[in-house]
Amino acid sequence: MIKAYAAFEAGGKLQPYDYDPGMLNDHDVEITIEYCGICHSDLSMLHNEWGITQYPFVPGHEIVGTVLAKGKNVHNFQLGQRVGLGWHSGYCMTCYSCLSGDHNLCAQSESTIVSRHGGFADKVRAHAASVVALPDSIDVQSAGPLFCAGITVFNPLLQFNISPTANVAVIGIGGLGHIALQFLRAWGCQVTAFTSSDDKKNEALALGAHKVLDTRDPAQLTAASNQFDLILSTVNVKLDWNAYITTLRPKGRLHFLGVTLESLDVNVFPLIAGQYSISGSPTGSPTSMLAMLNFADQHHIKPIVEIFPFNKVNEALAKLASGKAKYRIVLSNQ
Amino acid sequence: MIKAYAAFEAGGKLQPYDYDPGMLNDHDVEITIEYCGICHSDLSMLHNEWGITQYPFVPGHEIVGTVLAKGKNVHNFQLGQRVGLGWHSGYCMTCYSCLSGDHNLCAQSESTIVSRHGGFADKVRAHAASVVALPDSIDVQSAGPLFCAGITVFNPLLQFNISPTANVAVIGIGGLGHIALQFLRAWGCQVTAFTSSDDKKNEALALGAHKVLDTRDPAQLTAASNQFDLILSTVNVKLDWNAYITTLRPKGRLHFLGVTLESLDVNVFPLIAGQYSISGSPTGSPTSMLAMLNFADQHHIKPIVEIFPFNKVNEALAKLASGKAKYRIVLSNQ
Repeated sequence: MIKAYAAFEAGGKLQPYDYDPGMLNDHDVEITIEYCGICHSDLSMLHNEWGITQYPFVPGHEIVGTVLAKGKNVHNFQLGQRVGLGWHSGYCMTCYSCLSGDHNLCAQSESTIVSRHGGFADKVRAHAASVVALPDSIDVQSAGPLFCAGITVFNPLLQFNISPTANVAVIGIGGLGHIALQFLRAWGCQVTAFTSSDDKKNEALALGAHKVLDTRDPAQLTAASNQFDLILSTVNVKLDWNAYITTLRPKGRLHFLGVTLESLDVNVFPLIAGQYSISGSPTGSPTSMLAMLNFADQHHIKPIVEIFPFNKVNEALAKLASGKAKYRIVLSNQ
Repeated sequence: MIKAYAAFEAGGKLQPYDYDPGMLNDHDVEITIEYCGICHSDLSMLHNEWGITQYPFVPGHEIVGTVLAKGKNVHNFQLGQRVGLGWHSGYCMTCYSCLSGDHNLCAQSESTIVSRHGGFADKVRAHAASVVALPDSIDVQSAGPLFCAGITVFNPLLQFNISPTANVAVIGIGGLGHIALQFLRAWGCQVTAFTSSDDKKNEALALGAHKVLDTRDPAQLTAASNQFDLILSTVNVKLDWNAYITTLRPKGRLHFLGVTLESLDVNVFPLIAGQYSISGSPTGSPTSMLAMLNFADQHHIKPIVEIFPFNKVNEALAKLASGKAKYRIVLSNQ
C-alpha cells in the first residue's frame, strides 16, 4: 500500500489516503519519497481549474527520493540511488518528439498528477525514462522544486541557445522566477527582475538580478524600451503584453512559462517591425533535466524552500495559496 | 528634374508630378528606373491607412533599373550597372542592428515611400547600402517584386535556419505567397498552400505546392493538425489563428509577413504545451537580398507579373485593389 494525501472533491482538504498500486510494471521505478515540492499547478489541479482533475486527487510532482524497487527492464538505476521526478511520469517513447529527445512535448505523455497519484505520499511510481538521477553533491532538501519550477525556467536557455551575452528579464519573482534569476546570473547574462513586490526587490538582487523594475510603474516599463533579448514570464495573470514587447530588442523573444487563461491580444505590426517572437514551453526533457541538475550543482544554485512535514500539508497548501511562500514550499517525510 | 506620378490626397488618382531632387548626396546612387512593381503597402500608403503618408505621395518600392549617377563616396557600383531597390532606401549604419547586418531592423531606417518619393518615376535615389546589384542572368522585367514581396517571404528561411526537411505552409497565394511557394519548393521543403480561391488551386500546385488546402473549410484545417514546422501568413485579414496553431508540430512557428490590424488573440496554454513560436519579420537585410537574388537566379524563380506602362498607373492600381492581379503588377518605363 502507498500512504498518500488526497483531496476527495474540488478544493477539498487533503486527507490520508492509502491505495494499492498493484504489480510493478517492467519499465517502472518505485521511489521512496523523501521530499516533495508544491507547485502552483498542484493548486490549479486541486481546484480542477483545467477541468481534468479526477478525485481522489493526490498532488505532488517535485519529488526527490530513493529507488525502492525497479521493474525487470529497468537498467539505468540501482536500488537505493537518489533520484527525482517532475511533471511527467512517462512518455510514449515512440512519437517524433520522443524520438527527437523532446519527450516533454510528447502528446501521449503521462503526467504525474493527472489520472494517477502523485508525490504527496510515502512512495510513487514512474516510467524509468521520466526518473532522473541526482548529482551526489546536490542539496537534497531543496532539490524537489528543480524538477518542475527549475527545469521550466532552465529549458528555454537550452531550447533557444541563449547566449551569455543576452540581456534577459524575468517577470514574476516567485517559485519559478527566483530560480530563473539564479540560473541566468550563472549563465552569464545581464539579468533584470520585474516584480510588483517592494520587499522582493533586495531579495531579487541577492538572487542574481542586476536590476529590479516595478511592474506597477508604467514609467519604468517605458524607460526599459528596446533592451531585452529574452523575457521569461512566470506569472499567471494578464499583463499589458504589448507594453512588454516594446522592451524587447530587435529579434527579441517574449516567452511564457506561466499559464494565463486570458488570450494574449498581441499587435502584429510591432511583431513584424522588430522581428519579435512570442512563445512558450513546458517543463523539459530528461536530458535537459540532467543538464539542469549538473548546472545547478556546479553553480550552487538552490531553490529557497520552506519545509513542512507531510502531516501539515493543508497548512502548506494554504500558505502557497496566500502568495506568501518564499519561495517554494517543500513537504518532508524525514 | 525627376518625372514621377503622385497622389495629392488620400486615395487620390495619381497624376504626373515633377520634382527637383537637389544635389546628389555623397553616399547616394541615382537609378534610372526600368520597372517598378506595385505592392499592397503602396495602396495602404496611398490611402494613408497607417497615418504616416505625406502628399504629394509617390509610391513604388520594387524598383529595377540602372545606375545613372553616384555620389563621390559610392564605390560598390559602376555607372550603368543593373540594380534594384526595395522598401528601404537608407539605414543609420551605426545602430546595433545595422552593425549586426540586420539593417532591415534599423529603427532609423529610411523607407523608400515614407517622407520621400518612390519608384513610380523615371528616376529614384537611395543610399548605396540599400541598393542591391542584380545577377546578370536574372529576368529584369519580373525582378522588381523580388525586392519587397520576394525578400519578405525568403528572409524567414534564413532567419530561422529552416531545414529542407521542414513541412511548411503558406497562407494566402497572392503577391507574396506565389513567390513563397517557389522558394520553398526550391529550398527542398514539403509545401502546402492555404487559399480561399478555387481557381488558384492548380496554379499553386504548378508554383510548387505539394498540397492545397481551402481556408474556407474548417474540416481541412482540422485534418491538417500537428503537421507544419513553419506557417508563413501573407494575408492582411484576421483568421482563426488558434485553429492554425493546431496545425503546427511541436516547436512549430506561425510567422506573420502580412500586417493584420486586428490583434492576434492567441491562447497561451497551447503555446506552452507545444513549444510554439508566433513571430513576424519585415523585408530583409542587404546581404539577405543578395542571397535571395542568387537563389532565385539559380533556381529560375520568377514572380509572375502583369506589365502596365507607367502612364496606365491608375488602371494598374485599380486592378491590384480589385484583388484580381495575378500575381504582381509591374509598371514599365520601357
